[in-house]
Amino acid sequence: MRVGLDMGGTKTDAVVVAADGSIAARVRLATGWGGEEIVRTAVAAVNAVATDAGIGLDDIVSVGVGIPGQIEAGTGRVWHAVNLGVDELDLAGEVAPVLGIPVRVENDVKAAAFGAYALRGSTHGLDLRHGSMAYLNLGTGIAAGLVTNGELWRGARGTAGEVGHISVDPQGPACRCGQRGCIEALAGGGAIAERWNRPGRLPVRDVFDAADAGDPEAAALRSGLAGGVAAAVRILVLTADVDVVVLGGGVTALGDRLMTDVAAELAASAEASPFMRSLRLEERVELLPTGSPAAALGAALIGAQTGEPEEVLTHG
Amino acid sequence: MRVGLDMGGTKTDAVVVAADGSIAARVRLATGWGGEEIVRTAVAAVNAVATDAGIGLDDIVSVGVGIPGQIEAGTGRVWHAVNLGVDELDLAGEVAPVLGIPVRVENDVKAAAFGAYALRGSTHGLDLRHGSMAYLNLGTGIAAGLVTNGELWRGARGTAGEVGHISVDPQGPACRCGQRGCIEALAGGGAIAERWNRPGRLPVRDVFDAADAGDPEAAALRSGLAGGVAAAVRILVLTADVDVVVLGGGVTALGDRLMTDVAAELAASAEASPFMRSLRLEERVELLPTGSPAAALGAALIGAQTGEPEEVLTHG
Repeated sequence: MRVGLDMGGTKTDAVVVAADGSIAARVRLATGWGGEEIVRTAVAAVNAVATDAGIGLDDIVSVGVGIPGQIEAGTGRVWHAVNLGVDELDLAGEVAPVLGIPVRVENDVKAAAFGAYALRGSTHGLDLRHGSMAYLNLGTGIAAGLVTNGELWRGARGTAGEVGHISVDPQGPACRCGQRGCIEALAGGGAIAERWNRPGRLPVRDVFDAADAGDPEAAALRSGLAGGVAAAVRILVLTADVDVVVLGGGVTALGDRLMTDVAAELAASAEASPFMRSLRLEERVELLPTGSPAAALGAALIGAQTGEPEEVLTHG
Repeated sequence: MRVGLDMGGTKTDAVVVAADGSIAARVRLATGWGGEEIVRTAVAAVNAVATDAGIGLDDIVSVGVGIPGQIEAGTGRVWHAVNLGVDELDLAGEVAPVLGIPVRVENDVKAAAFGAYALRGSTHGLDLRHGSMAYLNLGTGIAAGLVTNGELWRGARGTAGEVGHISVDPQGPACRCGQRGCIEALAGGGAIAERWNRPGRLPVRDVFDAADAGDPEAAALRSGLAGGVAAAVRILVLTADVDVVVLGGGVTALGDRLMTDVAAELAASAEASPFMRSLRLEERVELLPTGSPAAALGAALIGAQTGEPEEVLTHG
């Protein structure tokens, strides 16, 4: 059995994956804050999901962890996981010796991309060794993960899929990164909440509601969001030519309301340009179902690729 | 021996490539206009370069042809090679039986990308099975070819690298494709010549000269060109995270004048954004030397990948 964890800012999603790729158990826990608590949460999540599956730690071959932050290539070290209160943490090195199981760590968007690819393949009966997909995560920030022929596209220096910081409008809003008109400044949940700047637990939903009620500021924010997502889709297809772009992340809880806006943006460029029309982008965008275990599943599958368990175990 | 042809709008570049990858001979011919003349040019170029190398057609194992147009996957059929007067042509099917040699056809930018990757690897002593590169062709139009771990990234539907039609400015100039602010509308030699709209054999060079002489319209065009190229570089690195972006094509004949402008644009975004600065883009952009045989070499290497010679030979 393989365990996968998706450690988010508020919740950690844990799954047990059987040898046939099916999910045998799934539990969710609150995520702690700061390095020590993150390690504690990871250990607790593995124990909890093992209990739920009715297995012991001895039955677990590997643990994969998806976490929002930069991952040092080839190690289990995490950098700048700001939403988790972590500046630097040797997550694999801390967790593996406690559990006695090899641990592999991956960026959460890459893990979700890998899991979404596997889920989509099994749903559609696709040969996972062929085909390509981008997973576009619409959360506080915006980033994509690319999978091609069954492998994560990691890129040369770990920035593959960082489409959030591509500027698509020199007159656009200032981005936290320092540039103007970045896709993340237009369509990131964090940037929209900041510009909306009103109390509310679900600011992007509030923006959509206010736009529906005729608020012009909200309508502009909402249109910027759809424009930013559509730009990301075009960039992913025109650069990497993936078969399909799967949208996921917190903002996609808006479901059809979001998809309708994005489809309208894609239709507008298809209307203007025969070349864009030939790409049939509107047919190549899909929504990851709310509550999908893609990220935790992807983490488990990446954990299963662990080469030398000893290396990880002797790390701590 | 392998032969590679790069068929451009005015000239066809032909090389003979030895088993060790070195170029044993190289000749250039004028390219004919229209399907029949293109076939004739291809046959003449193979014969001429064979003569130059002192070999017979019997010594040639394969021919690869790079041509500006859409190539139907898996066949040697060319579509919409407008600069060559070709709407549809079964180039491999026509040329192979005349020569008695299997022929493979590839889009010229993809061929140049593959050749530039091989040349760069042999110059730097790199292991060609690892690493990634984008070749950004700056000609009448703008398109890129991606190579990763020694293989061309073809994408799902043949549009990988079509960064020329990504819009980076909703207020930008109208593009021939129908959209606004496409990279090609900003930085394509054809679009610049059209907007400059003055007589002259080298309109982009004229624009640079006029900008140096203080012409404000020329300065705006020149700055748009650099901005468009820099945007393409950012998109290629932030999406595919290639090690390096190699610039080639007619417009790069401007050499350092172009590179200085592009470097200044990349420096401006690095100045604004610590994230962009961390990418060190200015160190990751290179210029393909003028007169490089990259495209013809790439065509020869792609021709060498021909699987079933019989298939191609019985085509005609």
